[in-house]
Amino acid sequence: MTTTVPDVTDQYPTRQDEAPRVIPRQDPVVQGTAEQGPLDAETLRGFDERGYLTIEKLISDEELRLFREELHRMAHDPTVKADERTVVEAKSQEVRSIFDIHRSNEVFRRIAEDPRVVERARQILGSEVYIHQSRINYKPGFVGKDFTWHSDFETWHAEDGMPAPRAVSISISLTDNYSFNGPLMIMPGSHKHYISAAGGTPEDNFKQSLVMQGAGVPDPDTLTEFADRFGIDVLEGPAGGAIMFDSNCMHASNGNVTPYSRSNVFIVYNSVENTPVEPFAAPAPRPAFLGSRDFTPVGG
Amino acid sequence: MTTTVPDVTDQYPTRQDEAPRVIPRQDPVVQGTAEQGPLDAETLRGFDERGYLTIEKLISDEELRLFREELHRMAHDPTVKADERTVVEAKSQEVRSIFDIHRSNEVFRRIAEDPRVVERARQILGSEVYIHQSRINYKPGFVGKDFTWHSDFETWHAEDGMPAPRAVSISISLTDNYSFNGPLMIMPGSHKHYISAAGGTPEDNFKQSLVMQGAGVPDPDTLTEFADRFGIDVLEGPAGGAIMFDSNCMHASNGNVTPYSRSNVFIVYNSVENTPVEPFAAPAPRPAFLGSRDFTPVGG
Repeated sequence: MTTTVPDVTDQYPTRQDEAPRVIPRQDPVVQGTAEQGPLDAETLRGFDERGYLTIEKLISDEELRLFREELHRMAHDPTVKADERTVVEAKSQEVRSIFDIHRSNEVFRRIAEDPRVVERARQILGSEVYIHQSRINYKPGFVGKDFTWHSDFETWHAEDGMPAPRAVSISISLTDNYSFNGPLMIMPGSHKHYISAAGGTPEDNFKQSLVMQGAGVPDPDTLTEFADRFGIDVLEGPAGGAIMFDSNCMHASNGNVTPYSRSNVFIVYNSVENTPVEPFAAPAPRPAFLGSRDFTPVGG
Repeated sequence: MTTTVPDVTDQYPTRQDEAPRVIPRQDPVVQGTAEQGPLDAETLRGFDERGYLTIEKLISDEELRLFREELHRMAHDPTVKADERTVVEAKSQEVRSIFDIHRSNEVFRRIAEDPRVVERARQILGSEVYIHQSRINYKPGFVGKDFTWHSDFETWHAEDGMPAPRAVSISISLTDNYSFNGPLMIMPGSHKHYISAAGGTPEDNFKQSLVMQGAGVPDPDTLTEFADRFGIDVLEGPAGGAIMFDSNCMHASNGNVTPYSRSNVFIVYNSVENTPVEPFAAPAPRPAFLGSRDFTPVGG
């Protein structure tokens, strides 16, 4: 590559061709250096290779207790429940996700701007960062639903106009993650390959239609190749710990029939040098609580 | 206990009272001795304590290949697919379970009568055994469904008239069981406690209705107590291995969004001294392919 014309050349086309295809990642994964800290060279190298890192204990027991109380309080607050940024399950009328928590809630704003989180994000992305999206996820016991395999970046590129995968997510665990309560699964190394999804619904593609939950969903054949090639890491770990992962990681989670619920705080940091343009495969950008248009750097 | 009156006293009442309750198991778990073989004293003790045992390699690689071929052949045989003993998923038209395989198929009849399996079952149950039920289970990748927590014995008692939990199941793995493709989960030790399920649908029991998938389903509060008390074992293991578990084990499996399918051969052995009578909580017995009325001992 020599020159790229901004806002014209799409390095990560998707939902355009009839068949899916795999494109090598065009951008580096880690853009900062070990000297910057707080992550050491080995951790950065691991993140580059696998596309994620785990933090055994990110927040104190007191913070954990506070976050849980706040989650519980919000999930039962009629105003929060009625807010368009809250996802309520139709059948049970229980709260599943609350978006935009770094703006709507003081407790979660603080952790989203906390140096423990922001400095790691800055180091990985090699620049100042802003928050593209934030939410609390709550996966109940007994009836917790699965999330099928996807790259967040594919959606953010197609629907929010994020140019490159220069974004990193952090998931802070508010409950213990066991192999059996629907934990995060990542295909390590998959973040270096971009699945350009098929456009529309292909004809005679019975297998694909089985898992098609919406546009941009990767096809089963490519997912099988990826799983055989990269394997699947099951991210167990205690409450109070965290996982940071690249925006283009292929990830998923199974449902949860056990009594143990799973909840986490999820914050997406994007480089201020990677702010969204017009969506690459959608008529209009999604609402700001899904893809922020406020690019103010966080963490002062 | 001194005397019991056959066919009158129900030691394991269920689906009768308004509220669920837990009854201590009335019968021993292991009724044979180590001297009989092939299981040694430690394995028997483990089965007594946990309610299950695992066999790293039960069948040869050649048998595994043969069983898989036979499963594939049957799943695509129009006659098998049309049989009332075959469960076909409505949406995908794919075969999920084929019952009564020890009667309908020569390959699976042989393994069901094989000394490697039958002698272990005899030793655990301390008597001659017959086959109460057999089936192949096929859980596909991407869209594999969960099975919520249950004791098989509760169903067999209520609907088939099996008097006591003197039955053991073997699940022979035809595919690798990973923590992530919806493997069998067991609450170890739960088999010594019988959950007498509530009858009908309790009023104002919102939580219960969430998971109620049919009569006899354990209630969430008792399941939570059980999980906290017994823990949850996730039974990973290679294809060709097997799991034997007590009929009253509390067990379940999560769904499967990974590309890796799960299939197994499942055979239930019941003691010939525990043959079914009239159902304890159903108007009529289920069909013979679900609860056999042929009590001929297997294994000669």
